[in-house]
Order: sequence, then structure tokens, then C-alpha cells
Amino acid sequence: MLSEFLLAEMSRLGAQDALPLHRQLYEALRRAMLDGKLGAGERLPSSRDLAQDLQLSRNTVVAAINQLSVEGYLASRVGSGTYVNDNVPRATPGRSARQASGQPASRQAGRLSVRGTALSSTFCATELEVQPFTPGIADFSAFPLTLWQRLQNKHWRMTYPDMLDYNTSGGYAPLRRAVADYLRVFRSVHLDADQVVITSGTQQSLELCARLLADHGDTVWVEDPAYWGAVKAFMATGLAIHPVRVDEEGIAPASADNAKPPRLIYVTPSHQYPTGAVMSLPRRHQLLATARVHDAWVLEDDYDSEYRFSGPPISSLEGLDTDGRVFYMGTFSKVLYPGLKLGYLVVPRPLVAAFKQAHYDLNRPGQMPVQAALAEFIEMGHFASALRRARQNYGERRQCLLEALRPVLRDTPEGPSISGAEQGLHLCLRLPPGVDDRALAQRIAQQGLTVRPLSAYCLARQDLRGLVIGYGYAPLADIARCGPVLAALVGQALNA
Amino acid sequence: MLSEFLLAEMSRLGAQDALPLHRQLYEALRRAMLDGKLGAGERLPSSRDLAQDLQLSRNTVVAAINQLSVEGYLASRVGSGTYVNDNVPRATPGRSARQASGQPASRQAGRLSVRGTALSSTFCATELEVQPFTPGIADFSAFPLTLWQRLQNKHWRMTYPDMLDYNTSGGYAPLRRAVADYLRVFRSVHLDADQVVITSGTQQSLELCARLLADHGDTVWVEDPAYWGAVKAFMATGLAIHPVRVDEEGIAPASADNAKPPRLIYVTPSHQYPTGAVMSLPRRHQLLATARVHDAWVLEDDYDSEYRFSGPPISSLEGLDTDGRVFYMGTFSKVLYPGLKLGYLVVPRPLVAAFKQAHYDLNRPGQMPVQAALAEFIEMGHFASALRRARQNYGERRQCLLEALRPVLRDTPEGPSISGAEQGLHLCLRLPPGVDDRALAQRIAQQGLTVRPLSAYCLARQDLRGLVIGYGYAPLADIARCGPVLAALVGQALNA
Repeated sequence: MLSEFLLAEMSRLGAQDALPLHRQLYEALRRAMLDGKLGAGERLPSSRDLAQDLQLSRNTVVAAINQLSVEGYLASRVGSGTYVNDNVPRATPGRSARQASGQPASRQAGRLSVRGTALSSTFCATELEVQPFTPGIADFSAFPLTLWQRLQNKHWRMTYPDMLDYNTSGGYAPLRRAVADYLRVFRSVHLDADQVVITSGTQQSLELCARLLADHGDTVWVEDPAYWGAVKAFMATGLAIHPVRVDEEGIAPASADNAKPPRLIYVTPSHQYPTGAVMSLPRRHQLLATARVHDAWVLEDDYDSEYRFSGPPISSLEGLDTDGRVFYMGTFSKVLYPGLKLGYLVVPRPLVAAFKQAHYDLNRPGQMPVQAALAEFIEMGHFASALRRARQNYGERRQCLLEALRPVLRDTPEGPSISGAEQGLHLCLRLPPGVDDRALAQRIAQQGLTVRPLSAYCLARQDLRGLVIGYGYAPLADIARCGPVLAALVGQALNA
Repeated sequence: MLSEFLLAEMSRLGAQDALPLHRQLYEALRRAMLDGKLGAGERLPSSRDLAQDLQLSRNTVVAAINQLSVEGYLASRVGSGTYVNDNVPRATPGRSARQASGQPASRQAGRLSVRGTALSSTFCATELEVQPFTPGIADFSAFPLTLWQRLQNKHWRMTYPDMLDYNTSGGYAPLRRAVADYLRVFRSVHLDADQVVITSGTQQSLELCARLLADHGDTVWVEDPAYWGAVKAFMATGLAIHPVRVDEEGIAPASADNAKPPRLIYVTPSHQYPTGAVMSLPRRHQLLATARVHDAWVLEDDYDSEYRFSGPPISSLEGLDTDGRVFYMGTFSKVLYPGLKLGYLVVPRPLVAAFKQAHYDLNRPGQMPVQAALAEFIEMGHFASALRRARQNYGERRQCLLEALRPVLRDTPEGPSISGAEQGLHLCLRLPPGVDDRALAQRIAQQGLTVRPLSAYCLARQDLRGLVIGYGYAPLADIARCGPVLAALVGQALNA
């Protein structure tokens, strides 16, 4: 009966508004929940079953479900499917299916808030097991641990009471200077050290920006496909997420997007996550002009700019900004190690005082001895040499992976082809539209390898198929051994 | 003219609704802003001038201004007064005074969001200079730094790659076990180690709860007077803050409070911040019953329970809860040092998985080697002996401060009297209603001593006068020297 309701609703919407199919399904599912046709706490049929019942492509179904999850209507739990959030408000009075059947609503889901349910549910892209090819993971086995230990020890010996307290000035001053020097030289960022705020990493940088620059309900433009960590940060801070398509030159706002004027625009210009697209220079100027028109702030996440293997070096978007509207952010987790929990945010001058005050009040930053050790690590050139070694190391892995994948590449417009291999710790293997990339990723997982389906990063669009493949985590030998396995499975899918 | 508008508006409101005076002034000021009588970016007259012009007590004015600041209408900047937020929406079209005069609106204030302006403005209680008697500050000069350095060094030597990564399990397992053992024995908390989530401190614990348990606009009951750090966390997460009076038995909801049914109730039951009231047993049972009626969650912040000097030990509120609706939180910053950035949150069992997942996704917790060092610090009994030494140390300071203040105490219902000296690192000197505690605190600051006026912690009420005096920071000799100075200034104010 659910299918019938959805089909009726979709045909009504289709006739009326000429909405795309996934949007019709989104509206129909939403209506089913608000009317109580889909009861609070009820399990949704699988995307495969829904696709079959409604005669839609599975990706249409997945796009609708993703959007409803982003908005807090649905919650997914690993291994147990997708559920209607118990807190979805009902438009008309009436009893949900589950209540009518006399069963109590699920206690756990019912007692989280709507946003709590959304924030604690997992998306396809955030499973936690790490295996060869998992993207987003660096290899810190080569990190100079003994040296780092010695530096930390030294700064602990030199510590004085102020270093044990919270910090009120945006971070340890020599570290802010070291970051400013690095960014000025290597990333063409315009800044002085006073503009650097040391944070606990990109999540904190993003939340600070979202809270101080936008109000609840304000619109943030997010690249589609997107980095899920940023999407979660914007969900957590109550922003309305508007997906904007990414092409081979980066984010590509269409005129229709202007109907949702942004307060914030979040971009990863030097290596779009996950497609790897580098934002072209004309596109950068266009984006800054668009931001000016909307009086929007631009959040530039330069998450892996340290690792560039080929092609010209890409400067920061911030460096092109004459208007003081770009916030630039980066992290030390890719060159040192993630658990360090140190990142940085470059704040336009007029807002520095406000950001430091709010950062203190909201986050009570501390960890000063570690910041001191890191400042010396950078000043003494250890950061640069760790980076050099890592770049060489990852460069070899990247080469090995590229060679393993070469047999499946085709020189046709539809591919398969590789994008985003010039930089960072992952690349994107683009696949023809007919390939079910989720099913392929699952088959690959059965061989003990983790790759992410590109469609799992898509917020609204349905046209992308591919695999996001990391070469940061697995040692060279593993890549040499597993690369051909991966390629063979891709080849099978292409021939299926 | 502003005064005339406000007086007219207040007399209208007074006739109509019998609102208390501070509420009338709140409404009149709000109306003045929405109507453009008080322009965006304009500076408010000082509370002293407003009080004089309107023939109101200064505390009435301060209460109204505090409430408008909490709601984001006004912003204060240290040393430059209180301003109308540039983003206050205007109810009627029209030009603000400043726009009409041809001046551009302040760029900085105008480009922060409404919540950003509120979150980055300082309140009376969050000035950052630390002098003798500043409350909320511990003395970590006695912390066994060499031992701590040795432990950290040891765990850095023993570290393995997983310890450098983000942590997905709610914290280092031996630390969670050590926290659970401590809380079970000393705080009568019912828990197993799996329920402990290691956070970066109380701010993070509060935000996690607010986000997962409440939605934007939901009501949180907050003690009045209140801990400003918690108020900021709730502002940042978009909750509607409803102040509930505190008396000598702790939070005391009246039947009128039920008109604002809470989703969350935030309390500091073992040593109310800042009055020091201990929540009585009957009141604890009442609070749990009230929470049950509203199906609300209780957030128990046990921020300084480690330091109890006299009176029977106070168990946790969580220990009385048979319903699984209390979240218990604490911090290591008072016994070790603030910059450590480690605290803990005890999550009711059905919500543990959701909290760990969201904590990982939103905060990417790390710092595992420090967690390992802390686990050993506790397991080997160093935490207990640091606590013993500190308790003795603070006990002597407390005694010295009590003796210095004795000459100003009076055995009358109006006081002056001392509350909250049984526990923690501050006490509250209650003063008769006629004393201007803000002016007194300013005179004391001129002598190089920092105390906080009790009225600065009040959200809506106006009946409290007093000084919040810390004895955690200053060494015994300073307290012996400065205590009589403080007492003399208080004595002068009483005789003025």
C-alpha cells in the first residue's frame, strides 16, 4: 500500500510541477510520513525493493532517501536499515501504524531529538572499518615518533603554569606565526599571524564559522558530491544545505541555485572532495563574484593541499580574494597524525577579535604544550622533511595504484577514467552511468578492500558513478598486491 | 527621546499586563529596536544613565539588558559598552538612526550572524584577567608535573598507530574504566564503563547533549543565577533558555515554570554555581518527578564535587534516578589542569551507541596517548593523592578567607552571610538588597582583586546581591594579605 500511495502522490506531483523523479519521490515520502502513512519508528523498505516496486532506478531512490536523511526525516543504522524518525511532526492528527498496532514507539529513537537522530545516524560514507584503499586515511607509520616524543618531552619540561591553562589568544603565538609563514609562502594566503586561530581541527573550524557567520535556517551551498564531515557540521549548526553541482572545474552554480541565496559557500577548491576536481581560475573568480553578489562568506577547506604530485601548484582561493570574505582552513592531521587534534582557521581581519572571544567561550582551547612542540617541529624544518618523505612515499603508492587501474581505463567520453590523481591521498575512478557503484563497492568489500561508491557522496544529483579509492593507508606492497584484484572486479562489473 | 519612548511604552505595558518592571523595560527596549527607534549598531546609554532617566533601579535595567543580550538583540564589548545588534530584524520598514545619518553600519557587527554576535560578545562574568579571588580558577602550581611528564613520555614510547588516530569507541577503554570505578565509589553513580564517553570537557559534553536530545527552539531550564559557560553552550545550540529560581535548596521550579515545559533541565546539584547551594534530597526527588512529568532530560554538571570540606558527602542526582533520564558530567580540569581538555559524560544505556557515533562524526575525538597517561595516573593512585593534597591546600585557603570575612558577617536574615563554602573553590558572600554589588566589585578590582558580583550571574531575577569569591587561585599568603582588604571594602559598602 505504501508503493501505491507513493505512486499516486508522484504522478500527482509529476503532472503538476514537472519535478525531477527523485524530487517527486522525496515529496511523496515526506507526505507519507507527515500523513502517518509511514509511521514513526517504521522501517523503510530497502532502496532495492522500493526501486523495484516503483519502477525507478535505485539511484533515484537513494537520492530521495539521502535528502530526507539530511533533513532529519529518516535515520539509518549500520546493518539494520533506514527508519522513520520518531520525531517527525505529523501534519494531520492520527495514529501512526506502529502506535495503532499497540506497540510502544522505539524508546531510543523517540528520545533523541530530530537533529540528534540525524546526527547520530550513519551514512554510507562513514563506516568505520579501515582496509586497503579506504579513502580519507593517511599512513602515519612513517611519522618521526621518537623525534616528536622528544620535542613534547622538552616542552613539558619547560612548561609554566600559563601553558597548563586555557588559552585566550587564539593559540600559542609561535605556532600561529609558523602557520602564517607556511601559508604565506606555500599557499599564497594573505595573512598575518594574528589572523590565525588554532582549532582542534576542521570540524571545529567549520562549526565556528557556521555559528558566527550564519543563523539557524540560513542557506549554505555545499558541493555535490560532498565531504560528509562538512555536511554533518552544517546539519549540527542548523543550516539549510543546498547542494550545488561540481564539474571538472569545481563547483558550478547554475542560475537556478541563486533562488537559494547562500550565507555561506563551502568549497574544497584545490582538490574537490571526493571527485578531485581542481577549481579553475575563471571559476574561482566567478565564485568570488557570486559570493559578492549574495554578500556570502566563502569557507575554503584546503584539506590535503600538502600532497601535490603533478600539474602546476594550485594557490589558495583566499589569495584571489580582495574583499575579505574567504575563511581559509587546514589541518595538521594529514601530515602528522589525526589524533593530534590541531588545525587552523584564517579569519578576515575585522572579525578576528569576535572569533577569538567566541572560540574561547565555546571551546575553551588548551593543549598548549603540544602546540609548543608543534611550533618547534615546524620551525626546525621537521614538518617540511616529514612532508617531503610522505610525499615521496604516497607518490609511489599513487603510481602503483594508477598502473594497476590502467587496464580498465577506456579512452571514451564515458570512461572509465581517473580524476583527481594530481593531489591528495585518494583518486576517483569514474564509471559509466550504467554501473551500480554501490553494488560494486560491496563486492570489493567482500575481498577485504574498502572503496567508497561515488554516488554515496551525492546529495541530490544522480548522474555520478564511480569509486573513491584511497592510497594513503595501505603500504606499497599491499597496493601492488590488491590493486590488480580491485581492477579485476571493476573489469567484471564493466562487462556484466 | 529614547527615555520618553521607553517610559510611554512601559506605562502602556504596566497598565495592560502587570508585568514586572524589568520585563516591561525588556519589552520597551525590544520595541524600540524593532521600530528602529534604537538603530542597528547604536550604542545603548549606560545602565547607570538609563536607570537614572527612567527612575528605575540599576538592577532592573541590568536584568533587562542581560535578557536582551542572551536573545541576541544586544552585544557588549569589553570597555566599549553595549550595542544594538546590526542584525536585529525591523518590524516596520524605515531607516535606523545611524543609516539615516548617512554613516555605514558597522561592518564587523553587520557581517556576523545574530547568533554570532551574541556568541562573541562578553558578559560581565567572562572577563579574562585573573587576580586573587577570581572564581572558577584552580591553582595547578602544585600539580605533579614531573610525574605527569614521565607518564606521558612512557605512553608516547609505547604508542602504536591506532593511538595516533581518531578514536571511535568513546575514549581509551582503560580511562573509561577508571572513570567508571571512581564515579561508582565516590559519587554513587550507577554505570558501567561502556556508558562513559570521554569528551574534551564540559562545554563539549553540554553541546553533545543539547544537540542530540533537543531541537532548535526547544526549552532548557537553567538555574538562575547561572553558570555562563552552560548558557553559552545552550545559546550556541539554539535552545530557548528559561531561567528557574534557585534558593538555598537548589533549583526551585514554581508552577508558572511549567508553562515553559523543558526538554532539558541543567543543574549543578552538589554545589550550585555560583550560589553554592546544595540541592536537598526532597528537592532532588521533586526535580526527577518534574522531569518525568515533562519527559525531560536532566543534565547534572558535577563540576567541583572533588573538593568537599565540611558537611555530609553529597551523592550524585544520577544515583537517585530510576528512570534513566540523567546525564552526568564532570571534568579533570579542576584536579589536573584546564588545558588538559579531558572530561567525561555518562550516557544512559539506550543512548550510548547514538552518542558515540555522533561524538565521532561531530568531534573526531583523539589525544589517545594523553588519555592513556591519565588512565595510569588514576589507576596508580596519583589522582587520589593529587586530590588529597589539593583538598588540604584549598581547605587552608578557604579557612583563611572565611576568617578574613568573619568581621563583616551579621547574624540577621539579610546578612551579610556566606553560602556555599562547604565545597568547591569559591564561596558566595550574600549581601543585603540595598548594596550595589557591581559597583562594589569594581571598587575591589581597583585594589587588584577580582570578585564577581552575584547579580552578574542572574538571568531574570533581580533580588540577589553578593560577591562570588574564589580561593582556588591565590596562594595562602595572598589570601592572608588580601582577605582583610576585601573585608574592609565590603564593610565600607555596608556602611555607605
